[in-house]
Amino acid sequence: MSETTPTRQVSDWLAALDAALKRGDAAGAAALFGDDGYWRDLVSFTWNITTAEGKVKVRQMIEDAVLPAKPSAWQIEGEASEAGGVTEAWVRFETAVARGYGHLRLKGGKAWTLLTTMSELKGHEEHKGPTRDMGTEHVARRGSKSWLERRQQEEAELGITTQPYVVIIGGGQGGIALGARLKRLNVPTIIVEKNERPGDSWRKRYKSLCLHDPVWYDHLPYIPFPEHWPVFSPKDKIADWIEMYTKVMELNYWGGTECKGARYDESKKEWTVEVVRNGKPMTLRPRQLVLATGGSGFPYMPSVPGADTFKGDLQHSSEHTGPEAYKGKKAVVIGSNSSAHDICEALWEEGADVTMVQRGSTLVGRSASLGALTLDALYSETALKAGITTDKADLLIAATPYKVLPSLHAPAYEKLQKLDAEFYANLEKVGFMLDFGEDGSGIYMKAMRVGGGYYIDTGASDLLIDGRIKLKSRVGIERINHQSIVLTDGTELPADLIVFATGYGTMDNVVAQLLGRNVAEKVGKVWGLGSNTRGDPGPWEGELRNMWKPTQQEAFWFHGGNLHLSRHYSQFLALQLKARMENVPTPVYGLAPVHHRS
Amino acid sequence: MSETTPTRQVSDWLAALDAALKRGDAAGAAALFGDDGYWRDLVSFTWNITTAEGKVKVRQMIEDAVLPAKPSAWQIEGEASEAGGVTEAWVRFETAVARGYGHLRLKGGKAWTLLTTMSELKGHEEHKGPTRDMGTEHVARRGSKSWLERRQQEEAELGITTQPYVVIIGGGQGGIALGARLKRLNVPTIIVEKNERPGDSWRKRYKSLCLHDPVWYDHLPYIPFPEHWPVFSPKDKIADWIEMYTKVMELNYWGGTECKGARYDESKKEWTVEVVRNGKPMTLRPRQLVLATGGSGFPYMPSVPGADTFKGDLQHSSEHTGPEAYKGKKAVVIGSNSSAHDICEALWEEGADVTMVQRGSTLVGRSASLGALTLDALYSETALKAGITTDKADLLIAATPYKVLPSLHAPAYEKLQKLDAEFYANLEKVGFMLDFGEDGSGIYMKAMRVGGGYYIDTGASDLLIDGRIKLKSRVGIERINHQSIVLTDGTELPADLIVFATGYGTMDNVVAQLLGRNVAEKVGKVWGLGSNTRGDPGPWEGELRNMWKPTQQEAFWFHGGNLHLSRHYSQFLALQLKARMENVPTPVYGLAPVHHRS
Repeated sequence: MSETTPTRQVSDWLAALDAALKRGDAAGAAALFGDDGYWRDLVSFTWNITTAEGKVKVRQMIEDAVLPAKPSAWQIEGEASEAGGVTEAWVRFETAVARGYGHLRLKGGKAWTLLTTMSELKGHEEHKGPTRDMGTEHVARRGSKSWLERRQQEEAELGITTQPYVVIIGGGQGGIALGARLKRLNVPTIIVEKNERPGDSWRKRYKSLCLHDPVWYDHLPYIPFPEHWPVFSPKDKIADWIEMYTKVMELNYWGGTECKGARYDESKKEWTVEVVRNGKPMTLRPRQLVLATGGSGFPYMPSVPGADTFKGDLQHSSEHTGPEAYKGKKAVVIGSNSSAHDICEALWEEGADVTMVQRGSTLVGRSASLGALTLDALYSETALKAGITTDKADLLIAATPYKVLPSLHAPAYEKLQKLDAEFYANLEKVGFMLDFGEDGSGIYMKAMRVGGGYYIDTGASDLLIDGRIKLKSRVGIERINHQSIVLTDGTELPADLIVFATGYGTMDNVVAQLLGRNVAEKVGKVWGLGSNTRGDPGPWEGELRNMWKPTQQEAFWFHGGNLHLSRHYSQFLALQLKARMENVPTPVYGLAPVHHRS
Repeated sequence: MSETTPTRQVSDWLAALDAALKRGDAAGAAALFGDDGYWRDLVSFTWNITTAEGKVKVRQMIEDAVLPAKPSAWQIEGEASEAGGVTEAWVRFETAVARGYGHLRLKGGKAWTLLTTMSELKGHEEHKGPTRDMGTEHVARRGSKSWLERRQQEEAELGITTQPYVVIIGGGQGGIALGARLKRLNVPTIIVEKNERPGDSWRKRYKSLCLHDPVWYDHLPYIPFPEHWPVFSPKDKIADWIEMYTKVMELNYWGGTECKGARYDESKKEWTVEVVRNGKPMTLRPRQLVLATGGSGFPYMPSVPGADTFKGDLQHSSEHTGPEAYKGKKAVVIGSNSSAHDICEALWEEGADVTMVQRGSTLVGRSASLGALTLDALYSETALKAGITTDKADLLIAATPYKVLPSLHAPAYEKLQKLDAEFYANLEKVGFMLDFGEDGSGIYMKAMRVGGGYYIDTGASDLLIDGRIKLKSRVGIERINHQSIVLTDGTELPADLIVFATGYGTMDNVVAQLLGRNVAEKVGKVWGLGSNTRGDPGPWEGELRNMWKPTQQEAFWFHGGNLHLSRHYSQFLALQLKARMENVPTPVYGLAPVHHRS
C-alpha cells in the first residue's frame, strides 16, 4: 500500500491524535484540526451534546473534557475514502468508562470534522448476539419463576410498591424508542401516556395520513421494519407496529394515564410526579424525568373575533378526524403546512368544496424529487446497497455540524427548483407563496430551526394548481360569522367547516403547565439553533436547545423529534440516564446557558 | 486464477450441465453425477419434493421433469470451497417459469449432491426492498380508501361475501408461517384456529415450558427475532411474538374457530369447509385446503384398567397446566419424552414428590453438548459470523439427502457419549433406559422418522440421577386404584396426580376425523421416511411422506413441523399454491404412492 492511501492518511492522523492526547497535549491535539475544524461530541467526552467550532474551541474542549475522559485506542474502522479533496473514515475509540464510534473528515491533512459518539458503557453493555440472555436456566431450582410470572410481577409492582428510575411523559414514538433503549440497559422505566393504546397518537389523526418520510428513515431501534414494509407507512399500520413493538420490547407502558404535574426535591434528588391512571390518582417518585410529549399537547388556535358564533364545525387540525361528514359541504382550511394540505386533499377526495387560506410562505417539495435530491443518498435501497445502513446514515447526518449544513443543503434545493420549475411556476400562478428557507437551505434546516413550515407534496399541490382546491393567499383572517369566514382582503367564504391547521405550541408550554413557570423559565426555550432566522432567534449555540442533553433543571430531560431523531438521539439520552443510575461520573462540559424566557 | 480452483471446478461443472440440458441430453447431464449421486429438488423442476437417488434415477428425473421445465442460467454464487475431497458451492438457475437457488457438492469431479429449490415465480415475485409497495399514492383521487378501510373491508368480506383461495386449518407457528408467505404472495387465505389468540397453543402449556431449540433455529419468515432475544424462548414470550407477528403481517386469522369437517367437490374443484366461528356455524369454500394442526389435536392416552376409579387428578400432558396445586402431593408421570421431563422438573420445583415411569428407551442429550456437537455449526452466533444465515443453514440441511444424513449424524452422537460419559453412566445407574437411535443417528433422524423419542436436558436429568425425581423403568402399567397406580412389576405408587405424557396421535387421525376415512385411506400415512426402524415402516421413499407436497387427494396439503421446518418448507408449499392460483402449469413428477392405510 502506498504512503498516500486515504486509509493510511487517516490512520496516521489518528495515531497523532492518540499520541497528543496520551501526553496530555491539548495544543498538539488541536493543531491536528484546521482553523475551521469542528469536533462534535455526543456524550462520549462531554456528557453533553456539543459542537466545538474552530480550533480555539476545539482546544478548550480537549483540555476541559477530552483529556479528563482518558481517551485511547483510536483506530480506523474499515477503509477510508477520498472525494473532492475530503478524506473520510469511520473511527473507533475508548474512554475510561465507555466505547465510542465516530466519523472523521480530513481536508489538507487536517481535521475538518470529527464526530465522537458513545456506543456503550463498559460493564453496562446491552446483552445481545453472543451475550444475549439464555431465557431459561438449564438446572432445576425450587421456587423458580417463569418469564410470565416475573413479567407480571414487574407490572404489578413497578410504580406501585417499587419506583422506576425514569418516568417518561409521552408515549408516542419518541417515548417508546427511549423506553426500549432503557429496557435494554435495565433501567426501570415507566412511560406515561394519556391515550389508551400505543400508536393511538397516530390512529386518532385524519384517515388519509401517511408518514411523509420513507421507510428507511423511520425504523425504531432493535426491530427494523421487514423488507416488504411500504415506503410510506399509513398511520394505522405504523400504529399497529408501534403497539406490537411496545409489547414485545416489554415496555412498562401506562396508557390511559395523564400527568397532572411534577416537582423536584433537590435534597432527596427525587421527583414527585402526579398522574391519573384510568381515573385513579397515583404518585410516582422517579430519579429522572423525561418530557417526550412533543408540543402537540398544545394545539395553537389564533383567537378570531366571532369564532364562538360559528354555526358549523370549527376544529383544530389535531381534532379533525376525517372528511366523511363533509361531502358536498363547504370547507375552509387555515394554514399551508403538511396537515393543511393533507386535510384539504382528503376533503376534496370526499367531495367537499375546499378552500385553503395561506397566510405565510411555505416550502413545498414533491416527494419523489426531494427523495432523489436529499434523503436517497442516505436512506434508500441504493444507500443500503452501498453499505449505508440506517445507523450509519444517522451518524453521517450527525457528523456534519449544524454550522456547515445549510451550505451543504442549499445546492440540492437549487437543483430542486430547476427540476420542478414548471411545478413551482404553476403553484405561483395560482398565488401560492413559496420559499425554500431564508438561506435556501431547505426542509431539514427549517425543521431544526422552527420545527415546521413545509409540505412534502403527496398530491394536494396538483389540486391547488388546477383549482380543484381553491386558494386564498397573502391574506389574514378578519372574523368569523355564523356561516362564513371573512378574510383581511374583504373576501367572505361561506363555510360549514373551518379547520385551523395552525400548528402547535412548543414544549416550553408543556413545561410551564406541568412543572410550573419557575422551572420553565430556568430551562428556557426548547428546540431551535439560534440561527437568527424568523422564529429561531440567536444567539447561535451550534446545537438544538435543550434536546436530549442536560438542562438547567437537574434530572430533567427533553426527548422527541421525528422517527429519525427519536431513534438516533434516544441512544445518547439512554446512556446518560444509565450512567447516572450506575453512579458513573458524568461531568457535563458546556452546559448551555438560557437566553430566552419561555 | 489457476485452472484448479474450487470455484473454477464448479463453474465448469455447471457449464457442462447447462450445455447438456440445453441440447436435451439427459444421459449427458446424468453422466455428470457420480454413481451414488443425488439430486434433491424442492418444487423447482418436479413440482414436488423429491430426491433422485443414484445416477439412474437422476437420469430419469432429468428426462421427465428437468428438461421439460427448460432450465437455464446456471451459475455459481460467490466462491466455492473445498474440504476433505468435497467441493461445494451455492448456485443459481432459472426455469421457464421460476428462479431457483441451490447447492452443489462435487466429489472426484462428479456431483455427489445437487439441491435445487424454487425461490420465486417469474411475474409473481414478492414486493420487497426496491419493489416494495409505496403505501400511498402521491396523487389525489375521489373515493380513495385508506389502508385501514381496505384492511377492515378485507376482514369483513373474506370468508363471508368473498372466498379465500386457501384455508389453513391450524393456527400454530406452522399455519402462521405459511399464512405469512401466502400473504406476501397475495394469495387470499384464512387461518382457522380453535384457540382465541395467536400464540395460545404455547400459552396454554405448563408454565415452565421454554423452546428446546435455540433462537437462531426458531425465526419466523420475514421478521427475525431481534439480537437481544434470549437463546431459549419462554413459552409466553414466544406466544406474544407470534401474536404480534400475526397482526403486523396482516393475516386473516380466525381465532375461536373450530373446523368440523370438509369435503372436496371434484367437479367444481372446490372444498366445502364447515367451521364454527365463535359459536356460529359458517361454510368456507376455498380451492385449496391445508392441514397444519400437527397431531396435537389427538392426545394419546393408553387405556388403563381402573383409571375411572382414580380419586386424584388424572391428566394428559397437554391438559396439565402447571404444578401449583401439587406442593407436598404425590405425582406420577408416565413417559420419558420432553414433556414428561419438563413436567417432572416443574412438579419437583414446586415441592411435589415425583416419580417418572419410563416404559421405553429415550435419547437424552444435554442442551449445551448437543448444541456444540450438532446445531452450532449451522445455527449460532459462530455460524452467523461465518456467513451462515438462518436461510443458508436451512438450505444446507436440505442439501443433504435423507439417505446420507444418518451416517453424517452418527459421529456427533458417538462424540456426545464420550463427552458426557459420566452423565450417561449416572443415568444408567438409576435405571434410565438410553438410546441414540437404532443406528445411532440421533435426534434429527428420530424426529424425521417418528417425530419424537428424545429429551434435550434442561435440568431434569440431574434430578433423576440424584433421586430427587424417582424413576421406575422397564415396567408397564398394570392398573389404577382409587389413590395409587400399580406397575407391571407389582410396585404400587401412591398418587394424588397422574400425568400421561404419552404423546399424540398423528395427522392421519385428524384427516380421518375431518375429511372422513375414505380420504384418510387415500392419503395414507403422514410423516416418516420409511427407514424400517421402529415406528417408521418401509418402503423407503427418500422424503417425508405427504409433507408440504402434493398428496393423493387433489388440492389437499399437509404443513407442519418444528419452527425450522415450518419456516423453510412454508416457502415451497406457498409457491405451489401460488402457482395453482395463477394457473402456472404444475406437472407433478413422482407423486408418492400410498403404502399404508392410515
